[in-house]
Amino acid sequence: DGDVNAGAQKAATCLACHGAEGKSAVPLYPNLAGQHAPYLLHSLQAYKKGERSGGQAEVMKAFVAGLSDQDMEDLSAYYSSLKP
Amino acid sequence: DGDVNAGAQKAATCLACHGAEGKSAVPLYPNLAGQHAPYLLHSLQAYKKGERSGGQAEVMKAFVAGLSDQDMEDLSAYYSSLKP
Repeated sequence: DGDVNAGAQKAATCLACHGAEGKSAVPLYPNLAGQHAPYLLHSLQAYKKGERSGGQAEVMKAFVAGLSDQDMEDLSAYYSSLKP
Repeated sequence: DGDVNAGAQKAATCLACHGAEGKSAVPLYPNLAGQHAPYLLHSLQAYKKGERSGGQAEVMKAFVAGLSDQDMEDLSAYYSSLKP
C-alpha cells in the first residue's frame, strides 16, 4: 500500500503543475487533492503504459518513467489524503 | 461556455459511476465534483478523440460518442460547480 509521508517527499516534482496542496493553479491541469487513491494510481499507470496521449500526456509520461510501482502508490496515497 | 443547469440535466448517465453529487462510490472511478471545468472538458474530448485506452476508457468512449461539444461543456461546468 501507499505511504502518505513517503508520497509527500516524492511529490516535489508534481507540485509545479498540480499545486502545493494538490490544487492546481492552471485549470487545464487536474486537482489531485482528495481524489481516490486507486484512481490516481490507475492514471499514473495509464501514462506509464502509454494509454494516454494528447494534452500534457507526454509531460506526464516523462515524469512517470522514473517512478517505481511503490513511488506511484505513495504519491497516490499522499494526494488522496489531502483536503479537496 | 458551459451551462451548469443544462449540465445537471445531461448528467443522468454519468451518476451511476461518478455519484449523484460527483463523488464516486467506486474508488477506481474519479470524483468529478469541484474538478476544474477545463480539465473535465479536456478529458471528455480525449476520450472522444481516442486518446485514452485501458481501464474504463472503452465505457467512456461509448458514452461520449453521443455527446456534442456543448454537452461536454455543460457537463464540465456542472461537475466543476459541485462541492468537492
